[in-house]
Amino acid sequence: MASVSLRYFPALGRAQPLRDVLQDAASLDPQLRFQDIQLPLAEWRDFKQQPSFAGEFQSLPTLTWGDVTLAETLPIAGFLSRQLGFYDGLSPVEIARVEAIISCCYVDVTIMVGIAIWAEMMCPGTQVEASAERIVPRLLAKLARLEAQLPESGWLGAARPNVADFFVFEAYESVALLLGPERGEALRLRLPRMAAFVEHTWARPALAASSARRPVRFSGAGDEPAMLERIWQAPLSGI
Amino acid sequence: MASVSLRYFPALGRAQPLRDVLQDAASLDPQLRFQDIQLPLAEWRDFKQQPSFAGEFQSLPTLTWGDVTLAETLPIAGFLSRQLGFYDGLSPVEIARVEAIISCCYVDVTIMVGIAIWAEMMCPGTQVEASAERIVPRLLAKLARLEAQLPESGWLGAARPNVADFFVFEAYESVALLLGPERGEALRLRLPRMAAFVEHTWARPALAASSARRPVRFSGAGDEPAMLERIWQAPLSGI
Repeated sequence: MASVSLRYFPALGRAQPLRDVLQDAASLDPQLRFQDIQLPLAEWRDFKQQPSFAGEFQSLPTLTWGDVTLAETLPIAGFLSRQLGFYDGLSPVEIARVEAIISCCYVDVTIMVGIAIWAEMMCPGTQVEASAERIVPRLLAKLARLEAQLPESGWLGAARPNVADFFVFEAYESVALLLGPERGEALRLRLPRMAAFVEHTWARPALAASSARRPVRFSGAGDEPAMLERIWQAPLSGI
Repeated sequence: MASVSLRYFPALGRAQPLRDVLQDAASLDPQLRFQDIQLPLAEWRDFKQQPSFAGEFQSLPTLTWGDVTLAETLPIAGFLSRQLGFYDGLSPVEIARVEAIISCCYVDVTIMVGIAIWAEMMCPGTQVEASAERIVPRLLAKLARLEAQLPESGWLGAARPNVADFFVFEAYESVALLLGPERGEALRLRLPRMAAFVEHTWARPALAASSARRPVRFSGAGDEPAMLERIWQAPLSGI
């Protein structure tokens, strides 16, 4: 097995499901040595131009597996699925079905949670509360579609969570973060099977053991805490 | 070979590189029968609940290949790469490198072009010009990173364009649409190698032959023409 490192910021964002997958795999295979590199945002400027750190697209996360470095969250997810054996014996159609779940979680939930948090920076003149009012119903609709894909019990990966399971887990967690602690119960009641799935996943020994290293922030944006606080306090008609 | 249909709206958005790939493949293989289904947005409500049309996530595009239907742009791209032989002989690392280009084009260019066009709908209170001022520099930076991945001549796919080539092609075209015809020359001067690559790709017989079916709109949003006109007229400091 290999020496593996994942580079990202001390944030959940584009990397947390990949961290979960690698922490879980490393807990099951002592030969897999996983290094979780969390670069302070202030140091990014010094590393951005280095392809060995920041990849061809000057964007984190990047993964180094042995002597190769790969960029972009979804291709890294596909690569890890292959390397860790999750695609063994699957047909191209079955692989595409697993990757559809991963893609829906990432493109239509995680990226959109980021846009909700960064709305005032990206779209000057808007208020983060007004943007959340538009974005949250779409997020909840996507989570409902994802919930319908989950098995009655256990994981998509059957005996142990696969890469898609951790993407669903983090999609739910990112929406829970966006909605705030006071809406947690409403979210659980709205998506009971997904909430049970998330709780079941939290009990994985690797997740429990690495919880101290789990970032509390979604992104590196300096005003994220203030933006989230405003969304948490805002009336949202969608939930 | 198979009977293949791709369902989307009469728009570029999340589907055009997939259409390009399939049109190009069908022009080279008469046994591949490709049906390009462009559903008028007004009819979407009637089809959204049908998994055989709208997939598990109630979102287009979906692809039917023989008797299976698949959802989500990027997994469809990966599936087509496998079925059409573009991944034959490639290692998992080489596949991940091709998919990183596809992912960067889709997540960081195409999706962001959509957000720029829909800014006033998604983030009430913003002006589309102000949002474009923030988003366009990021798009141009991503295109520059993508340009650095292109070969000196020809395509990433060497003898013929592969799936990644058509994603780069459409990433450039979507930014060109967002910036407007009067900035076309400035975009070509800024990204000369990518502009030459795009021109070279336009000369593919399949693209020329299907140009009458190529949608002129990026999305189904009713106010897209007005939004684009305002962005085209706005002073943008990034270009």
